[in-house]
Parts: sequence; structure tokens; C-alpha cells
Amino acid sequence: MKVAAFGEVMLRLTPPEFLLLEQARSLRMEYTGTGVNIMSNLAHFEVDSYLVTTLPDNRIGDAARASLRQLGIKDSFIQQKHQHMGTYFAEMGYGMRPTQVTYQNRHSSSFGQTDDKDYDFTELLKTVDLVHICGISLSLTDETRRAAQALAKQAFEQGVKVCFDFNFRPSLNTEKNKVQLMKEQYETILPYCSIVFGSIRDLTDLLKLPVNEQLEKGQQERELIQRFIKHYDLELFAGTKRQQINMVKEMTGLLYTKTQVIESTPKQLNVLDRIGTGDAYAAGLLLGYCENWTLDETVEFATVNAAIAHTIQGDVPLTTKEQIRQIMENPTIDLIR
Amino acid sequence: MKVAAFGEVMLRLTPPEFLLLEQARSLRMEYTGTGVNIMSNLAHFEVDSYLVTTLPDNRIGDAARASLRQLGIKDSFIQQKHQHMGTYFAEMGYGMRPTQVTYQNRHSSSFGQTDDKDYDFTELLKTVDLVHICGISLSLTDETRRAAQALAKQAFEQGVKVCFDFNFRPSLNTEKNKVQLMKEQYETILPYCSIVFGSIRDLTDLLKLPVNEQLEKGQQERELIQRFIKHYDLELFAGTKRQQINMVKEMTGLLYTKTQVIESTPKQLNVLDRIGTGDAYAAGLLLGYCENWTLDETVEFATVNAAIAHTIQGDVPLTTKEQIRQIMENPTIDLIR
Amino acid sequence: MKVAAFGEVMLRLTPPEFLLLEQARSLRMEYTGTGVNIMSNLAHFEVDSYLVTTLPDNRIGDAARASLRQLGIKDSFIQQKHQHMGTYFAEMGYGMRPTQVTYQNRHSSSFGQTDDKDYDFTELLKTVDLVHICGISLSLTDETRRAAQALAKQAFEQGVKVCFDFNFRPSLNTEKNKVQLMKEQYETILPYCSIVFGSIRDLTDLLKLPVNEQLEKGQQERELIQRFIKHYDLELFAGTKRQQINMVKEMTGLLYTKTQVIESTPKQLNVLDRIGTGDAYAAGLLLGYCENWTLDETVEFATVNAAIAHTIQGDVPLTTKEQIRQIMENPTIDLIR
Amino acid sequence: MKVAAFGEVMLRLTPPEFLLLEQARSLRMEYTGTGVNIMSNLAHFEVDSYLVTTLPDNRIGDAARASLRQLGIKDSFIQQKHQHMGTYFAEMGYGMRPTQVTYQNRHSSSFGQTDDKDYDFTELLKTVDLVHICGISLSLTDETRRAAQALAKQAFEQGVKVCFDFNFRPSLNTEKNKVQLMKEQYETILPYCSIVFGSIRDLTDLLKLPVNEQLEKGQQERELIQRFIKHYDLELFAGTKRQQINMVKEMTGLLYTKTQVIESTPKQLNVLDRIGTGDAYAAGLLLGYCENWTLDETVEFATVNAAIAHTIQGDVPLTTKEQIRQIMENPTIDLIR
Amino acid sequence: MKVAAFGEVMLRLTPPEFLLLEQARSLRMEYTGTGVNIMSNLAHFEVDSYLVTTLPDNRIGDAARASLRQLGIKDSFIQQKHQHMGTYFAEMGYGMRPTQVTYQNRHSSSFGQTDDKDYDFTELLKTVDLVHICGISLSLTDETRRAAQALAKQAFEQGVKVCFDFNFRPSLNTEKNKVQLMKEQYETILPYCSIVFGSIRDLTDLLKLPVNEQLEKGQQERELIQRFIKHYDLELFAGTKRQQINMVKEMTGLLYTKTQVIESTPKQLNVLDRIGTGDAYAAGLLLGYCENWTLDETVEFATVNAAIAHTIQGDVPLTTKEQIRQIMENPTIDLIR
Amino acid sequence: MKVAAFGEVMLRLTPPEFLLLEQARSLRMEYTGTGVNIMSNLAHFEVDSYLVTTLPDNRIGDAARASLRQLGIKDSFIQQKHQHMGTYFAEMGYGMRPTQVTYQNRHSSSFGQTDDKDYDFTELLKTVDLVHICGISLSLTDETRRAAQALAKQAFEQGVKVCFDFNFRPSLNTEKNKVQLMKEQYETILPYCSIVFGSIRDLTDLLKLPVNEQLEKGQQERELIQRFIKHYDLELFAGTKRQQINMVKEMTGLLYTKTQVIESTPKQLNVLDRIGTGDAYAAGLLLGYCENWTLDETVEFATVNAAIAHTIQGDVPLTTKEQIRQIMENPTIDLIR
Repeated sequence: MKVAAFGEVMLRLTPPEFLLLEQARSLRMEYTGTGVNIMSNLAHFEVDSYLVTTLPDNRIGDAARASLRQLGIKDSFIQQKHQHMGTYFAEMGYGMRPTQVTYQNRHSSSFGQTDDKDYDFTELLKTVDLVHICGISLSLTDETRRAAQALAKQAFEQGVKVCFDFNFRPSLNTEKNKVQLMKEQYETILPYCSIVFGSIRDLTDLLKLPVNEQLEKGQQERELIQRFIKHYDLELFAGTKRQQINMVKEMTGLLYTKTQVIESTPKQLNVLDRIGTGDAYAAGLLLGYCENWTLDETVEFATVNAAIAHTIQGDVPLTTKEQIRQIMENPTIDLIR
Repeated sequence: MKVAAFGEVMLRLTPPEFLLLEQARSLRMEYTGTGVNIMSNLAHFEVDSYLVTTLPDNRIGDAARASLRQLGIKDSFIQQKHQHMGTYFAEMGYGMRPTQVTYQNRHSSSFGQTDDKDYDFTELLKTVDLVHICGISLSLTDETRRAAQALAKQAFEQGVKVCFDFNFRPSLNTEKNKVQLMKEQYETILPYCSIVFGSIRDLTDLLKLPVNEQLEKGQQERELIQRFIKHYDLELFAGTKRQQINMVKEMTGLLYTKTQVIESTPKQLNVLDRIGTGDAYAAGLLLGYCENWTLDETVEFATVNAAIAHTIQGDVPLTTKEQIRQIMENPTIDLIR
Repeated sequence: MKVAAFGEVMLRLTPPEFLLLEQARSLRMEYTGTGVNIMSNLAHFEVDSYLVTTLPDNRIGDAARASLRQLGIKDSFIQQKHQHMGTYFAEMGYGMRPTQVTYQNRHSSSFGQTDDKDYDFTELLKTVDLVHICGISLSLTDETRRAAQALAKQAFEQGVKVCFDFNFRPSLNTEKNKVQLMKEQYETILPYCSIVFGSIRDLTDLLKLPVNEQLEKGQQERELIQRFIKHYDLELFAGTKRQQINMVKEMTGLLYTKTQVIESTPKQLNVLDRIGTGDAYAAGLLLGYCENWTLDETVEFATVNAAIAHTIQGDVPLTTKEQIRQIMENPTIDLIR
Repeated sequence: MKVAAFGEVMLRLTPPEFLLLEQARSLRMEYTGTGVNIMSNLAHFEVDSYLVTTLPDNRIGDAARASLRQLGIKDSFIQQKHQHMGTYFAEMGYGMRPTQVTYQNRHSSSFGQTDDKDYDFTELLKTVDLVHICGISLSLTDETRRAAQALAKQAFEQGVKVCFDFNFRPSLNTEKNKVQLMKEQYETILPYCSIVFGSIRDLTDLLKLPVNEQLEKGQQERELIQRFIKHYDLELFAGTKRQQINMVKEMTGLLYTKTQVIESTPKQLNVLDRIGTGDAYAAGLLLGYCENWTLDETVEFATVNAAIAHTIQGDVPLTTKEQIRQIMENPTIDLIR
Repeated sequence: MKVAAFGEVMLRLTPPEFLLLEQARSLRMEYTGTGVNIMSNLAHFEVDSYLVTTLPDNRIGDAARASLRQLGIKDSFIQQKHQHMGTYFAEMGYGMRPTQVTYQNRHSSSFGQTDDKDYDFTELLKTVDLVHICGISLSLTDETRRAAQALAKQAFEQGVKVCFDFNFRPSLNTEKNKVQLMKEQYETILPYCSIVFGSIRDLTDLLKLPVNEQLEKGQQERELIQRFIKHYDLELFAGTKRQQINMVKEMTGLLYTKTQVIESTPKQLNVLDRIGTGDAYAAGLLLGYCENWTLDETVEFATVNAAIAHTIQGDVPLTTKEQIRQIMENPTIDLIR
Repeated sequence: MKVAAFGEVMLRLTPPEFLLLEQARSLRMEYTGTGVNIMSNLAHFEVDSYLVTTLPDNRIGDAARASLRQLGIKDSFIQQKHQHMGTYFAEMGYGMRPTQVTYQNRHSSSFGQTDDKDYDFTELLKTVDLVHICGISLSLTDETRRAAQALAKQAFEQGVKVCFDFNFRPSLNTEKNKVQLMKEQYETILPYCSIVFGSIRDLTDLLKLPVNEQLEKGQQERELIQRFIKHYDLELFAGTKRQQINMVKEMTGLLYTKTQVIESTPKQLNVLDRIGTGDAYAAGLLLGYCENWTLDETVEFATVNAAIAHTIQGDVPLTTKEQIRQIMENPTIDLIR
């Protein structure tokens, strides 16, 4: 199975050694984004992985493209136009101090200024079997909205599976009209999708789906999600759950089909870098999907993969199948030689 | 309210990545000191903050002064004389390995060689409403002793509040006569003070105040401290309490008035850098004082501020009001974007 | 004399050790801009220096502002609005390999989105005696154009000297209409100015001033510049001349009044960092102007200052008067202790 | 007492800040090995310590030798021949992600190519009172096997104590014949030994010693080890035990004589660098042995030493007696000044 | 035209900032080799470029492969076997201090242990139009000798052009028999070649070709090289000439056909990193060959490319066509924006 | 021959990449001093070399001592007392910008507070054949003056050669009385010396020796120096001469005996680090002396050694005999492999 992701590449700039921006005189640089993270992880899992994006046509765009190849991503559907790349600063948290992300202008980025007319989706969809689309594209600009919708529709029509990640950030969509626009955008794209990543809040707050209050509390969430799955005829709906008791953090993987709910064992977390861990969960899940694993095996693998992603610097999960399996089998081994 | 601190600026040199001095070939440099720490934190809290000190009249003094401005401290009461700056090396601890501080000569520093005749306290006390004096000045040299006492007396006389931090280190005052001298110095300065930072041990071991043994254990500490507050007619006496159970560390903030005792909820600690966290508590407390918050609000804020200071590299707490409030309201959020 | 500069603050990101972007995984960060460079250098020369600009209202804006204070610039006329800071990457050249600058979006920057209505120029012009305006503001956006023109006009009316730097980059103004617009903009601002930095090409190519071909070659440049000076009733027009013979580079400082031409002795250059060296020339010149030096002394100092700026990392010239004078007097001393 | 270790020096290359090899563009370098680790730690404990090894006769060999001297090791029995040094990469683990070691060719190393005929053991054994031999030498090459056996035999004959560390890694000895060869090698060297570091698995799996199944479970381990001690007439047999409950790791030190078993209190571990911590236990134990401490004192010290070694970057434990004693006495002090 | 290179990938380890190995505690890492250098440069020139090599089947091999992709090299003919990668340390020279290279074991490397039976040359030769073979493969091991000879022969038979680089280092082939063996190896491979990189010394000292002493001095070199070209029916023979007068270094590019000699204008050199500059000359030359440029244009471009390669850190020339052309046209521009 | 140096060890702190103190957030650390530099270089030349000094009795003293061993210096005559080490900051110059050294308090250093009564010179002088004393010890404190004089006298009496380096810095001895005191100190120590490093200015300005004006200019210097040599019955008087023409710097080595003057060929200089290069000249000269080379060979070697020291980071010349000889024989080779 060959896969592609449509999405933005951003330059992430991180002060070293948990320093704050004010304290730093140097920054670690890397190129990230939901699509980058998932495709790179799948490439490390030995799946042929493409990114469909627009990078600046200058030296920073060249450097980004080189970096994507290094991550294992095939660059044949990447184009270079315009001059700007979205950028963010990540001040790494420690203990109870949260990681703080500060974005620089993303709307004017090469990706943000490019719409469907500039991409050759037809050729892409002849090449791959599944395409991942990140919901951020629906929030970003009119151009990216048009491109994402066109890609989903065309993929659906050509029989290529669409995997969609809600990734809805209320904080980025505070204007009143924007929320209504977003609801319509999501409702437009969902009929083309087979796999969706999201949470119960996405269904209630964004799509305004009602909870069935006659069910007992414990059943409401499942009923709503499965109602949603059936409505859009999805194969899978997936997400994670996070808890914290005192200083101990835990995450649990979740996977829904029309009829089943699979929940991983909870994993305790040591956090070196919190960003991109959701993408690691998605990559693990898509690996199981691509390779026809059982749902149980898939969820367990994806959850360990996400837990390990918390221990790797940067957004991009660089885990291999062998490494995750080794940790699943010997969770207390702390030195391999 | 405008505030100033009188105190030494030191050059702190720290091996990167928890390395020992023996292992290091490079050092991170920063400029610190109790006064620097508190004033910088207050400046980050949007209080007008001055430092009153003497820096070397050479390139390292210039660099230090530039750094203080970067930290938000106003440099109009800083003078540059002589050629030497006190220095210390901090080998950062990890887990059960303690942080190890090694001092280089502080007595010969520009600050250590300068007494009250070289400062223009009159102008200073026209400008600010509160002045913070660190007890280290009483231990350091005859010159700094004279300067600190003169400043406290003059502030008292001009109606500027004096905040005094005991900061008495028995290890720095081991000679017999020295302890007697120190007792006299502290007794001389205390009548000029309104706010004092210290601990019960400072009262018993340094000032030789007797515990009332007729009270039950749990009441002795409170009675002694409030007796001390009344004796010197203080507004506030503040400190912190640290506990460790197995590997879990906790701190609790304390604040006494003549009639009240306020204790914060205990905060678990993740320690990235232990140094300067007491100064963060002081800064939080002075903020509440300057802005007339309730005592409860003040102690809770100051304690969270101190807990967060443990997660920031370097002595200087660089927290903002917004950041501390966000953590107080959402203590489990680990990623802000 | 107190001075201010109106201009953009940019984040400069530089790979270490002459690496290319493709090779780098970390970047040195600093905050620069024509105004920053000149004001910081003047502050190092002990002139009271302000920057008038708009920084993002977020953590990168806070860090930039802190950095400006460290550089010696007073921040009382800096405001923070919007969310974006102009950024550029500098791949440092070596020998015959040129330094390569790549800009990220500047039009959407906080500075680029802010016009005269958001600044309190009246208060500013009560405080300072001279204001420096960089021509880039005329090219950048409609907002910055309006702000620059308003400031120049108001300064002129309030009797504050205006110093203007052409800084016209043909490469940034390639559209046909743009060039005409620029010509008008420059013609609008010049009547308010007393000191102008530029080159003969600015007069011929941008302002379309004709050379007097009847003069002999060697006299044409002088005649044109002095005709320009008289037309706009300037006090000073200044610039530099660069030559390269084999691998040896040289620069010469030039200064014109209505009646005089002063030329420095040529200085050989060792280039560590090429960027910002023109600003060092400007700063040296403004220092002489502020302190009423002779024109000869001024040009010689400014030229040495610019030559030394080539040997300092970063845009910002951090030289002191003492340092430049020492080099002027002992040009072959290579170790001071 | 003077001590020596016979063993390989390796170049360890570690990506900074927990990065993976793929992410790194720089590596921290240091020179390590079981012998290096133990001798350096003993030198820090003020024991005269020598290393007996062969380094490359080139600039990397020179740099290694310089580093060993810095670590406190005397280099008078180090020779330089051939051109190659064994190398390994250590990708530092974090939380549940294990540390990953990747070896480069060790068989062709200068040490691996050198046998007993090239060493002057006679002179060595006149100088020292105890010699430590690492079991890796028996696995590495025919040359190192011959050298290790010759040294043990000759030490035994000259009355110099032999301390031997099993250090048997099944993964390095997977071929069938190899295991039989190893068994014979270990059986040949053991009669010359007085102190042995190992585990129960070494006795059962490598030496094929039978457990006495008639004893109750809790007694079997002790009986087997003491049977082994008596068989080879050892003074001491030592090792450690590791447990993990949830995310909490613990280690316990163990020491056996013919008649006694001493077990330390368990120590919770914070792991910064897992490698070389067993060598820290050995160094602590040898210190107690050299200085005739009680067995209880020895085991407790050695275990704390090993626990602290987990908190120090690199293989080499750089602890001092004073530091370990301070931690034993005040385990909760986290800042020393 | 598509090209491939057959050759070893080495790990280069370089102390930062011109430090010596003894002074360094960190090393910059990169993956290099003649084939890597030429293919990466051609990829930057937009030629499809493949490397044919064997990397270790472990994490360092994975990291190397990722790095090659980043450099623009296609990895479809790279295999991973065995466990070892050749390594070298480069202590960077400065001024009159030469760069010092220290090799670690290359004979045992994955590349060194792999012969022709492990490569699929047939598939390769269907894909590419030209294959580059480095003479080092003939010196390294029996396995690499067999592989290189087999590849050259098969390419010749399948009509794929062979480009061969003498790269004979007398210092690596000091044994008497070795020189004879090498002569035979070179004589075996040359009949398959179309393009050869070498020097006059390779012809006289290695191949023992006699100079025609009856010609005048200035003609001897040309006559011998063209005799050699005709003997082996080559299209091109190329090399460079280096001079140094006082501290000024210069290089000149040379290119011979059966009938012509083309010599570039000499280029003065500023040396940041001397290694790999010959490969930059080769890459420039192959670009002209692939794109059918005139010989004059080709030599000039290749020589500037080699000169610029001296100003780039690392072995790998990362120049682009646009960049070299810009420097050729404006050799004194030192800042591009 | 075995040698020792008596002198101070200082901590040198250097901003990386030619940054200024103001720009730096990290510093490279190393341990230097005239004695360190010369002894380390001699150790690299395979001469047994000792340092006689006093280091702080704390962790920075321990780290310094470890570093000295790494440099090849034997530490058996090093003692550790008091708590302070002299420190200096070196802002590295570039091109015409001079290197700027800023000292921190040296008078209070462990070395500065220790006099002859604390050293065991008797044991030292049984061990070594030559002792080097740096003139700085005569300027520093009363304690170091007493120690240096006592050592010189005792060495002379025990037949150990004394080598003395004027190292008189007028800038450190500006008070009037100080110059007279210094004159007496130098006159006291010189009768014990065999080898002296200095310049003509030391003889005229410090010792007030008159030039013989009746000689022609070119002869005056030689006559004065040889008069001085005869007066104090020296074996050798040595120094260097520096010239600069435009940007080209040159140095020439000089050596005088009672009857001869030897002058090296002039060496052009590329300066990476200017500090400690005079010590490299001294080390080269002492090597020739220890090994009984001809004077011509000695001066040439010492001068190349000093020229190369300009190209090595840090004070300490880390050259080897092999390296210097290679450069002397092949001065234009820029890559060794």
C-alpha cells in the first residue's frame, strides 16, 4: 500500500536545553507538520510515503525538501512556489511548566497561497492507495480549503481511501462566522472519508451532534461516535484519552468501528517533547490498517508508538517497527547493545 | 509602586547538559544574584524595578549591565568601578545527585569593595517605594555591611519600605566572632524593616531567640515568629517549607502577619534548576504586596511561581503573571498553542 | 543630543560556522534592522538612543524587546501589536562565496501592518533631537509608507532633524509602477531631511537626476551630489565606496556638504560578517554630527567603525568610542591586555 | 594499595540532548571501557590506578591517552600500536525508550590485535597489588584471550590479586562452538581469581552449574553462589539486582563470601546515563576492599556510588568519596554551596 | 542523462572551530566519500544521481542512508549488510597548519567486505547512462577490487560510459607487491573507461609510462597524456594544478582530449575546508559532459565550482548551477539579497 | 632532561566563533598560563615536564589539575590550597579588530596567596634539570615574589638551570614605586639565570641599561643584549620580532649568545588565536636546548612552532616534533592523510 499526506510543512525553531526564547541565542531547526510527521513515521515503518505540499521556491524551501527526503518521504509530489514558510517557536516545557508554541504568519505561506489548480492530484491518485488530509487545511486559507476539498472529492471518486484528521482548534477559529464556515467545511469533506481521527468534542462542539441523554453516562460517548460512523459510513474512528494523577501522566488509545470499541492498556508517559505525539498514534494506526493487522494489535502498537513519541525530540516520530515491538515485549529493558 | 534591590551581581557559569566541571569544555554564562532574580521577576510582572549595585568598569561589567537591561531591570542606579565580579560555578544536579556550587573570590569584587559613600541613596529613595536588601551584604565585607545598613536606615527615615531577606548561611560564617558580629548586624537592620524573608532557624540559631517550650510543639513555631514580628513591628514574615518523600519533592509557601498564618497548598516539584527558586517566592510575594492582593491569593501565586522557577534554567525566574495564572487555573495542560 | 530611529526589527537566523542552511540543524538568533543597528551603535557611543517600532504582541516580540534593551536601546517608544515578525536567514559567505540572505514574509509583519495612527510621534518628537528614517519603510507597505512620511513631516515641523537613508533596493521594486511610486515617495520625504545616506546610483536611477555630461568624468559625481544637496537644502550627504583588487577588499568613506567633499583614507577589509556595515558607517557619522566633530575626524572615525563592523558577528555594530580610537591610533596592535 | 585494569579503550560517540543518530549533526566524544571506568573512579577515590591496554599509534590514540590521564589514570603501562580504536554510538534513552548502543568493528582494534607477547606484565605486576580483568577480553579475539589468560596466571603466580568481571554477553557469543570455548576460557581463568563480579545466570547458563533443587527457592541462589565461591576459593563474589515497578526503578547491591551474604538497602534510580553504572558498583566495592572497610559499609557505599553513576553523563563514574559520603548522610539535600 | 557512482560511504568526524582532536569534546558528523561528493553535487545540478554502495545494516547505516537522500542522492541501489562503516577524523587546518586526516579501519567496513556477487549491476546499468568508479576501490580489499572491475567491464559491455578517477595514494600502497598489483588493476580497468581523472604522476609513477625526453620540457606532459588518451581510446582526461606563492594559493583546471588542451584561468583560493574539492572539479566537469557544454565552458565552470568548494564546510560540494554562474558573472559581489 | 615551570594556572574563558562578551551566552573554558603553555608543549615534544603551582582546593582546582594532566604535564608538584583561581576573558580578534583580554582578580588567587614556605622546592630540584620562571610572578604579589626568588636562588645553588622570562607588562606596573621595585626584583633574580627570554625594551625601559650611542643604529641592539648576556653570564637570550605591512603579518625568531646572533627566516602569520604564541617560541627553544641541537636548527624550529601556535585555538601550543618538522619540510602541503 502506498500513502500520501496533503498538508503544510512548517519550520519549527526550538531553544536548546529547555531554555526560554528570552534566554536563547540559538535555535534547533527542523521541518514538521501533521503530514510530515505521519508520512515520515510510516516511511520508517517501511511504507512508501509521499507528501503533497508547496514549499517556498528559495533556499529555505530547498533545505526543507532535503530534510523531508532525509526523513524518508518521497518528494515527487512536492512543488516549490512563492517565498514564505510557516514558522513556529516551541519553548519546551518541563514538569508542570507547559510547552509554549508561538506561531509566525502561516496565512501568507507558500502552502497557504496555493490552491487545487496548482496541484496534479490526478497523477497523485494514480500512485497512492490512501491519502491523509489534515483538518488544519480547512481552517487555514480559502486556497487550502479549496485544495483539500478537491483532493478528498477526487480521491473518493477514483477509489482512493481518504483518512481525515479533525485537528480542529477552537482557539484558531474564534470568530462567530468562522465556526459556521468550519462546520460546513467538515460536513462537506466527511462523506468522502473512510478513516477519521477526532474526539467526542469535535462531534458535539464543532458538528453540533446531540448526545443521547437517555443512555447512561458511560454509553453516551460510544453511541454518539458510532452514530457518527454510521452516518458517514466510516471504517474507523480513532483518538486518544489523556489522564493525569498528581504528576503521573497516562494515555490510552481508542478505536471505534460501527460495532466495536477497542481500548489499549493505559501507558504512563515520560515527556521529553509533547508535540507530534498524536501524529504518532495516527501513524501506528495507519500502519495496522495498511498491513491488515487485527484491531487489538493495531491499537496497542499505535499507543506504544505514541507513548515513545513523547520521548523523542521534535515533532517527527522516528520509531521503527522493530523498536516498538521490542519495547512492547520487554517494557523494562533500558539498555540495548 | 516602584521597587529597587541592593545586592551583588555575580557571573554564573554552568556546564551544559548536566555535565560536571571536569567533563565540560564550555560553560553557559549568565548574570545573577538575589537582587537580580527578584527585580527581574518583578519587571516581568510589570513592576518598575531597579538594581542598586556596583559592576566592574570593564568589558565584563558592560556585558553584565547589558544583560540586566535585557532582564527588564532599569540600570540607572548601577555604577561601574574596580575590575572584578564575583563568580560561581554551578554543576547541575540530577535526581539524587545534588547541584554543586563552587564560589570564586567574592570579597574582592567591585560590589564587595564599595561602601555607602559611593552610592547616591538619596536620589534612589526619591524614586522608589520599596527597597529590598539581601542579608548576604551583611556577611560579605565591611564595605557592603556599611552600605546595606546605611541604605536601610535612610530608607526608613525617608519612609521607603524596607524588605529584608535573612539569607544567612552558617557555612559562610563559621568563625566564632563572625557569628556574634552577624547577630549584631541583623539586630541593627531589623528595626528598619517592614517585610522579612527567613525561617525559624534564622530566629533560633542566628538571633538566639528562645522557643516557648510550654506551648505544644505545633504552636511553638508560630508563636516565635509572631513574637519576632511584633518585636520588630513587621508587616510580613515569609518563607517556604520543603519536604521529600521517596523521590517526590514538595514545597509549601508560608506567610505570617502579627495575627495570621497563611499556608499554600503543597506543590510537587520537578527540578530542572534548583537555584533562585527562593527568590521567585519572594518576587511573587512582593508582587501581591505591591498590588494589594489578598494574603491567600499572594501566597498561592508566590508558591506556584517558585515551583515553576524550578523548571526554568538559570537563577533568574522569568515568569509572567499571565503564565502563572494559566498554570494555577489549568495545572494539567502541558501544551499551549 | 538624543536620537531615535523609525524602522523594522527583524529576526536574523544564521547557521553557525559558515554552514549552509541545508547543513545546519541549529541557527544563531539575533534581532536586527537598520534602525536597531544604528541606535545600538550610538548607544554604545553613549548617545541616548530610542527605537520607534512595532513588535509582535507575543513571546517572540517580548524576546526581541528584551534584546533591544540589552543592545542599549531605550524601549519606551516601542509598542507590541499583531503576531508576526519579519525574518531572514543569512548563510554566511567565505572568501569568494557571497553571503546569501533569504527573506521570509515581511509585509505581514507587525511593523508592516502598522501606520502612523498607531504611533505617538508627538511625544517622541518632544523627547529627541534627531530622527533616523530608513528608506525601506517607503518600499514595505502602504502602512509603513504613511507612517514614515507622517513622521518626517511632523519632525520637520517640530524642528527635529531628519536623517534619511535611501536604502533603495532595485531588486525589491521591480514592478514598473512601483518604481514611479518610489520616486514620488522619495521626492515627498526629501524636503524634510537634513542628512541623507545614499549613493550616486540612487540619484540617477531612482530620482532620475541627470548627470552633467559637459563636466569631465571625475567631476560629474561631485557636481550631481552637490546639486542634489542644494536642491533639498541638506546639511550632509554621505556614503561609502568599495573596491576589490584580486582578493583584497577596501572601503572608503565619503561625505559631501554643499561645498566640501571629504574622503577617508581607504581601509582594507577582513570580512567576518558583511551585513550591517553600512549602518556602522552611518552610526559613526551621526556620532560626529551629534558631538560636533570636524568633518575630517567624523569621516575617518565612521570609516574605521564600518571596517571594524565587518569583523563583528551579526548586523549590529557593538563598537565603542574607546575601541575605535585605539585602533585608529595603533592599527597594528592585535592583542590588548 | 595500587591497582591496574587490563582492558579495551573505546571511543564513545553520543548525540547531544537525547537526539537519535538520524537527528544529530554533532556527537559528544569520550573514551571509555570497563577498565577505564573502574580505574578512573578508583583514581577519583585517591587510589593509584593504572590501565594496561593498547591504543592506536596515531592522533586518535594520542587524544585517548591524554583523556585517560585527565581521568586520573596513570598511563605508564599503555602502549600505542596499529591504527584502529573500537567505537560505539550511544543513542541515549529517555523514560520508556531504551538507550541503544551500536558497535563499530572492535576485532580489528589496536587492543584486539595485541596479545601477551607485546605487554610487559612482569614490570606491571611488580608495581601493583591487584589487577582487574574484564571478561570481554575472553570473548574478543584470540589475541586478547591469550593476553588476559597470561596476565591472570602470572599475577596469581606473583601473588598479585586478580579481580575478574564475568561481563558475559550471550548476544555476542551466539555461535554454538563459541559458547563451549567461552566456558573453557572462564574455567581456565577462575582458579587465578580472588574477587569475581557476576550474576547467578553466569553460573547457570555459561558455566552450566546445577541449582540444588532440593533447597527451597529462596535458598538456591545463595547455595549455588557460595558453592561456586568455595570451588574456586574466592574471597568475594559481587553483583547487583534491578527491579522496576511501574516507572520506578530500583537497584540493590549484593556481596557474597564463603559464609556471608550482604545486601544493601534498595536505591531508587533517576537515569540520565545508564551505561557504566555496573562499573561504578565494582569501583565502590574495590575501594572498600583496598581500604579494608567492613563488608556492610562497602556494599552500601558501592550501591550509592552506582546509583549516582546513573545521574552522570558518560560511562565514567567521576564520583569522589566525599561526595558519596555526603549523599549517604544527607540523601535529600539537593543544593550544596 | 542519469549517472551513478560506485564507492564507499565514510563517516567523517570533525572537531568544531578548527580545534584539534585533543581539544575537542564534540565532533561534527557527516557522511562522505568520492562517490557521495560527486553524486550529491550533480544532484544539486539537477542530474538524476545514484550511489551504488553497501552500508551497515544497523542504526548508523540507516542514518547514513537518510543523509544521502538529504544530499539529493537516490538510494535505490544502496544495500545494507554487515556492521561497520569506514570512519575518518579531520582536524581542520588553518593558514600554514595543514588539515590532518586520521583513518579508522576501512578494510572491515560493510563496503570493504562486499564483492560483485552482492550487487545487482545489471539492473543498475539499465537505469543509468554513466557510472563513476573511484580508484580507491582498487586499493581497498579483494572484494572491492572484484566489484569495481566487474562493474567497469559490464558497463562497457552494456554501452554505459565509465568515468574513472585514479585517486592513487602512494602512501596507502607502500608494500612492493602492492604497487605491482595496483599497476595491473589499473591496466585492467582502463580499457573500459571513457573519462579519466588523474595527474601526470599517476601515469609516470603508477603506470610507469615513459616521458618523451626528446621533446622540450613544456611539451612533455601534454604529449604523454595524449599518448595515454589515445592508447586507451579515452574521450577526456582531466585534472587540476595547484600553486602557492607566499600565502596565496591558486588552482587551475585542466582538460585533455586526443587533440586539445583546455586550461582555465587560475582561481585564487580561500580555504575553509580543503577536502572534497577535487570531487567538485569532477562534478563540474561531468555536468558539462552530461549537458554537452563546450569544453571551455565546462572547464571554467568546474574550476570555479572547485574553488567555491574550498569555502564550504565538509567534503560534499553543495553548490548549484545558479550560484556558480552568479559568481562567474559577478566575482566581487559579497552579499546577495 | 627533565624540566619544570613555576607559575600561575589561569582559567581562560573565550566566547565561541569570534563573538564579543556581550553577544555570548556560552564560553569555551581552558586552563592556561605561561608555565602551562611551555610545559605542555615540551611534554608534546616528549620531554618530562612538571608544573609547580598552587591550585584551589575545590572542584575548579580539581578540574584544572585534570586538564593539566591531559595536556601531558606531570602533576606531582602541584598543591591545592585556598579557593580562588585567576581568570581571564578573551574576546577573539579578527582581522584589524584586536583580541581583547579582560582579567578578573589574580591577586587573591590560590597561587597569588602562596609563598615559598608552602612549596617543597628541594624535592623538585632533585627531580628536574631545568626550571622555568615567569616574570609575572615577580609582579603579582609579595608571596609569589618571595616564592620565585627563593626557587631561583635554590636552583642556582643546587646546579639546576634557571630559565627566566621577562614578561614585564608596563601596563600592570604603572605606579611609580612599583617600577623601582620591579627593577630590583629583576636584578635580584637574573644572576641565578642561564636562559632569558626578553626584548630590547626590557633592558632599556625596565633595567635602565644604556644604549651605546656611538655604535651605528644597526649594531646598538646587538651590543646591548650581548653586554647584558655577559654581565649576567647567561648562555642564551632569546626573543621575537613582529612586523606588519598592510594586512600581512610576519614574525622572526632571534637568539643571542655572548658571541652569536641567530635570526630565523621571517614567517608570515595567519592568526586564529594570538595568545600564547610567545610561549610556543620559548618551548621550541628549550627543546633545542634540552636536546643539544645547533642554534640555527633551534631558532628555525622555534619560529615555525610559534607561527603554527597562531593557528591553534587557545593559549596552549599542542604541536608535536613530527608535525613541525613536516611543515618545515613541506610548507605548502595543506592536507595530510
